[in-house]
Amino acid sequence: MAVYTEVSDAALTRFLGEYAIGGLVAYRGIAEGVENSNFSLRTTEGDYILTLYEKRVEPAELPWFLGLMEHLAEQGIACPLPVRARDGAALRMLCGRHAAITTFLPGIWPREVGVAHCTPLGAALAGLHRAGRGYAAVRANGLGPAVWGSLLERCRVRADEVQPGLAAELDGALARVLAGWPDGFAPPGEAAAGGAGIGEARIGADRSAQGGLERGHIHADLFPDNVFFLDGAVSGLIDFYFAATDLLAYDVAVCLNAWCFDDGGRLDGVLAAALLRGYESVRPLSGAERAVLPVLCQGAALRFLLTRLYDWLNTPEGAMVVRKDPLPYLHRLRFHLGADASSYGMPA
Amino acid sequence: MAVYTEVSDAALTRFLGEYAIGGLVAYRGIAEGVENSNFSLRTTEGDYILTLYEKRVEPAELPWFLGLMEHLAEQGIACPLPVRARDGAALRMLCGRHAAITTFLPGIWPREVGVAHCTPLGAALAGLHRAGRGYAAVRANGLGPAVWGSLLERCRVRADEVQPGLAAELDGALARVLAGWPDGFAPPGEAAAGGAGIGEARIGADRSAQGGLERGHIHADLFPDNVFFLDGAVSGLIDFYFAATDLLAYDVAVCLNAWCFDDGGRLDGVLAAALLRGYESVRPLSGAERAVLPVLCQGAALRFLLTRLYDWLNTPEGAMVVRKDPLPYLHRLRFHLGADASSYGMPA
Repeated sequence: MAVYTEVSDAALTRFLGEYAIGGLVAYRGIAEGVENSNFSLRTTEGDYILTLYEKRVEPAELPWFLGLMEHLAEQGIACPLPVRARDGAALRMLCGRHAAITTFLPGIWPREVGVAHCTPLGAALAGLHRAGRGYAAVRANGLGPAVWGSLLERCRVRADEVQPGLAAELDGALARVLAGWPDGFAPPGEAAAGGAGIGEARIGADRSAQGGLERGHIHADLFPDNVFFLDGAVSGLIDFYFAATDLLAYDVAVCLNAWCFDDGGRLDGVLAAALLRGYESVRPLSGAERAVLPVLCQGAALRFLLTRLYDWLNTPEGAMVVRKDPLPYLHRLRFHLGADASSYGMPA
Repeated sequence: MAVYTEVSDAALTRFLGEYAIGGLVAYRGIAEGVENSNFSLRTTEGDYILTLYEKRVEPAELPWFLGLMEHLAEQGIACPLPVRARDGAALRMLCGRHAAITTFLPGIWPREVGVAHCTPLGAALAGLHRAGRGYAAVRANGLGPAVWGSLLERCRVRADEVQPGLAAELDGALARVLAGWPDGFAPPGEAAAGGAGIGEARIGADRSAQGGLERGHIHADLFPDNVFFLDGAVSGLIDFYFAATDLLAYDVAVCLNAWCFDDGGRLDGVLAAALLRGYESVRPLSGAERAVLPVLCQGAALRFLLTRLYDWLNTPEGAMVVRKDPLPYLHRLRFHLGADASSYGMPA
């Protein structure tokens, strides 16, 4: 379910009058997505997506997201292009919500991931990383390692309802992940939760200072339902509202978790090798990036485990949102804790 | 939320291969609707709707619904036209569900009903009634008066959880509605629940035998979200899966309930007069139909009150379905119980 706000036809017609994209022909709510309200919108000029930004998106950050998408689209990345209204602004208000219209992207997200998806996915991810280099503004990763400790604290009392011993297991895993984290990460207490990294974010620059770990803009949530394919090629990358400035290889770790495991935590090495091969066909990983991949994968598994656990424990009964089971990410986390750089089928 | 079944891209591509409507370009789940899974589907040839029929629809009745839609579309009614596959069949299987592709209809359903909607709505309803006359097959109304008693029985024990005294109030109302029902309705015990009327359904014929009450095919669920408007005209009537063969004026009563009341049960006489004026511009109501309108409105209010009450009491916590509050239909029912034929702003 992804329609939280109903827009009246009269309000929508007025809103559309602010744009030069023709008259309203049809709009329907889109079922996919959980964070925002999305509508497919047809005008006499073409097809668009209307997004109303709901609770979880910080309005002050919307210009950064829309600016990133505009920049990426200009660089040829198949991502939604925010449409500017007659006054030049893409970010507007509708029904008391921030709202934007973006271009429609064709394609279908894969319900069953195969090798044929993972190679173009990897290449598209690397292309996104490369294209992002020219976008100067930075955004700290609000769901990066700085906040995992506080997320765990907020789940601690009830975590064992999901699985006995879960809180203790996560304590141990978190300590190990933070100790191994490559980015000079400041442990809780030294960095304000949620704000870590804002002042020190750097794009592309000084690989040496980070030991060969390039920072840049990452999607940070590139799950299969955010990637459209058409005729075997990636035709769309969507949903940039978790994007941030962070280690590029962390995005690879997110995709390995999201695309290459079953829910029992078993890696499909063929898929992983295909993903990495595709990525490296566009942007080869440095030796340092390869070396830290296991800990980045641990961190990525922990990030989705913690947010799913928090939502699992805090979604009211009867809410119109699918609660995603956190345990498949516990199983992945365990795999990564026993992995080394050779575990992911990395090309030589 | 109206995506209960996820269709893999591979399965969809195979399915689409059975049709001559081009190759797959995009598909997205549609948020609207609660009974079935609906997807907007774009092919290289155009836009379509893919429907997977879920729990509540009886597969044996699907050919009747699809046949009615095809008949109505051929008569020029703006309703979805089932698309036949290469083998001539419109009703098929996909992911273990019965499934059909229909044409896409432009337009927007009105979130705020106004007079400008009600006149064309009324005319479209009458047009549908007139166009249905040539469709010979009949379907008994599975949610008609024959089943209200058993529906109430299934809600009785817990009805007062919704409002103290509700069960007793509904008992009294049901007895009064059935006693006043014009259709020679057999009280419970004489007709099998759900099957009433199958053997005696007649289309258009013998107005006299029914005392001027014409029987025909009714939509039976023509709420605002099932009616699309474009440039002030009705551009689409959708969701025929409650359609049945019943008193045509009962469909008018359903629309009066759905379009012309606020949730406190107050009639908007201007809207009602507009709806009736629009209807009569295409198909004038007989004197008998006018006379029984209050009891038909009582029955329509009771029907939606009972199904909403049943769903309210039986929808599991956490289900991905919006439970609709039954009480607004109690308020309408009370209005209708105090109404006479002149209460609805009927044109002279």
